[in-house]
Amino acid sequence: MSQPLDIAVIGATGSVGETLVQILEELEFPVGTLHLLASMESAGSSVMFAGKKVRVREVDSFDFSQVKLAFFAAGPAVSRSFASKAHAAGCSVIDLSGELEHAVALVPEANPEQVAGLSLPALITSPSASAVALAVALAPLKGLLDIERVQVMASLAVSAQGKEAVGELARQTAELLNARPLEPRFFDRQIAFNVLAQVGAVDAHGHSAVERRLVKELRALLDMPALKISVSCVQVPVFFGDSLSVAVQSRGPVDLGAVNQALEAAASIELVEADDYPTPVGDAVGQDVVYVGRVRHGIDEPEQLNLWLTTDNLRKGAALNAVQVGQLLLKHRL
Amino acid sequence: MSQPLDIAVIGATGSVGETLVQILEELEFPVGTLHLLASMESAGSSVMFAGKKVRVREVDSFDFSQVKLAFFAAGPAVSRSFASKAHAAGCSVIDLSGELEHAVALVPEANPEQVAGLSLPALITSPSASAVALAVALAPLKGLLDIERVQVMASLAVSAQGKEAVGELARQTAELLNARPLEPRFFDRQIAFNVLAQVGAVDAHGHSAVERRLVKELRALLDMPALKISVSCVQVPVFFGDSLSVAVQSRGPVDLGAVNQALEAAASIELVEADDYPTPVGDAVGQDVVYVGRVRHGIDEPEQLNLWLTTDNLRKGAALNAVQVGQLLLKHRL
Ligand SMILES: NC(=O)c1ccc[n+]([C@@H]2O[C@H](COP(=O)([O-])OP(=O)(O)OC[C@H]3O[C@@H](n4cnc5c(N)ncnc54)[C@H](OP(=O)(O)O)[C@@H]3O)[C@@H](O)[C@H]2O)c1
Ligand SMILES: NC(=O)c1ccc[n+]([C@@H]2O[C@H](COP(=O)([O-])OP(=O)(O)OC[C@H]3O[C@@H](n4cnc5c(N)ncnc54)[C@H](OP(=O)(O)O)[C@@H]3O)[C@@H](O)[C@H]2O)c1
Repeated sequence: MSQPLDIAVIGATGSVGETLVQILEELEFPVGTLHLLASMESAGSSVMFAGKKVRVREVDSFDFSQVKLAFFAAGPAVSRSFASKAHAAGCSVIDLSGELEHAVALVPEANPEQVAGLSLPALITSPSASAVALAVALAPLKGLLDIERVQVMASLAVSAQGKEAVGELARQTAELLNARPLEPRFFDRQIAFNVLAQVGAVDAHGHSAVERRLVKELRALLDMPALKISVSCVQVPVFFGDSLSVAVQSRGPVDLGAVNQALEAAASIELVEADDYPTPVGDAVGQDVVYVGRVRHGIDEPEQLNLWLTTDNLRKGAALNAVQVGQLLLKHRL
Repeated sequence: MSQPLDIAVIGATGSVGETLVQILEELEFPVGTLHLLASMESAGSSVMFAGKKVRVREVDSFDFSQVKLAFFAAGPAVSRSFASKAHAAGCSVIDLSGELEHAVALVPEANPEQVAGLSLPALITSPSASAVALAVALAPLKGLLDIERVQVMASLAVSAQGKEAVGELARQTAELLNARPLEPRFFDRQIAFNVLAQVGAVDAHGHSAVERRLVKELRALLDMPALKISVSCVQVPVFFGDSLSVAVQSRGPVDLGAVNQALEAAASIELVEADDYPTPVGDAVGQDVVYVGRVRHGIDEPEQLNLWLTTDNLRKGAALNAVQVGQLLLKHRL
């Protein structure tokens, strides 16, 4: 058992932050003092941890030299403002925003060996939920397939955009069912019973930040810097759980038997047989694994492998992966 | 103006059939006597056409020699049982089920020239909604791109599975919002706030009938019998309007300016500029065009063209295309 560590969770009142605090408890992470931080708005509220109420404080006035490890789950702006401050104060940072240029993307199932090369204090990214799911599913297949291209269509839950987005889907749905006029607030239009073609704004080339982040992180996680990855992220009216339709183009025929065997053997994957399929609600949500189903060739194309992934975006996609990275860090170095 | 034609609509009380009767009126199709047919269940009910009530009768006892043209919109089993009977009685058939082996798939925007080669009475398929949308969007690009592969992820509305599916999404959503226990009926699990990885059952190779149908029909419509098409169709909690995320792999760099120009020039396409994007609700539903947005290269891949399509699955995807095929048939031969 490791020595207890003093820890900070930034964004502790958010979707990811709340889940993270729960998971620290569930996995019996060796926590010494736990500092929960958020904005002025939530300062003073409290969150339960290990049977005790922990007061939430403002991040602005926090002295990061008090902690050895900080989880940043308060969005890009907060990571930009405070992560390097924390790091300079001698604190290892596990960031969930993807905003830290020099941080190393880590998913224990995909690239655990990267931990050995880190200098302390470490600067680590827990990748986007889609990148985590893809890395978990593709890492066991890397040795089996000569991968030429990965094509991804990700249908993201509204919780991928935080608590407010969850409230907005519930509110819009209730208004529509009660035949009241719809007034979009968080999203710029109706999300209830609709599909939005993009998640967040797009850049001059038409790509959204989540799409660019996924490509960058997946290449790093699979250690395939030149991998062709084609990706579209869309917003579906689902509260929790991301779904990914994936086509892997291989340079030779895909042996489905071997693929199924490798997926079956992976501890963080729940493989669903061909007569069934996994869904976010009912399967993935609340679970710690990546569900994989619809394992098949392309139509008339034995060189193509098709997969369907679904995962809890707040757990394995975010909070759980971050805590597991923390465990890895503890085991090796911290 | 053509001579009025005596016409039958089979499945006139269904989602597609009702829309079809409306569109015959909207487009002033030259209808003589209109025969509306369905199952025993709806026989005796009536549907409005051109200001008059038309009684619905049972298809089983209908004499097809009374009509010159029949639209089949009552599902695969009915097409299998009655379409060849109708055809043998001298009636041209426009089938929406995709079940007729020797029928020619037609989308006026894609392969109108096929009409000239038909012998009468004609046996025609109005393709699946996704195949129609793809054909409309890709036909203007065929001359511009050296297409190697088309990758499609289709998010289908529940209405793609008929009236009962629409009712089920509404019922499930209301039950969830009222915190009542959920009992799936039409779908085998929760569809509200969920995504189902497949639409209908899959075959021994893992492909669903809608996926196989899309590949077969799109190859025919584009007259590219060997085109590589990779497709996943999933079910989203949307009432009306299909959405397609499309990646077209070209053998050379894609000229986005030329692509935008070709799409802009196509009469059945509404091109949405890069600072916006189209959605089923709010844009496509109730409209007669295919909406195209998010026109962009792949990330780091100028040889890839990405598109987002959305279309009213009951109108351009089904009823409207069928009536437009009827117009083409009239103009050329019937
Ligand atoms: N949601 C996902 O599926 C997911 C997956 C992977 C990564 N992530 C990343 O995780 C982070 C948090 O996402 P979320 O979904 O948990 O968002 P959220 O539900 O909106 O929560 C945001 C959290 O950040 C805090 N915060 C906001 N502005 C702040 C400020 N100026 N100073 C201090 N704290 C501030 C909020 O505190 P208050 O209560 O004081 O407002 C709240 O605790 C984001 O970087 C996101 O990209 C999310
Ligand atoms: N929905 C779409 O987006 C879409 C798009 C393209 C093509 N299609 C195709 O269009 C067809 C109809 O789909 P839909 O969505 O309109 O389905 P739907 O709403 O369920 O309607 C089915 C229609 O078929 C009739 N019917 C069912 N069983 C019958 C039987 N044994 N004998 C006679 N009539 C029978 C029903 O009549 P009762 O009222 O008597 O039951 C009803 O009029 C299907 O082949 C479908 O594949 C649908």
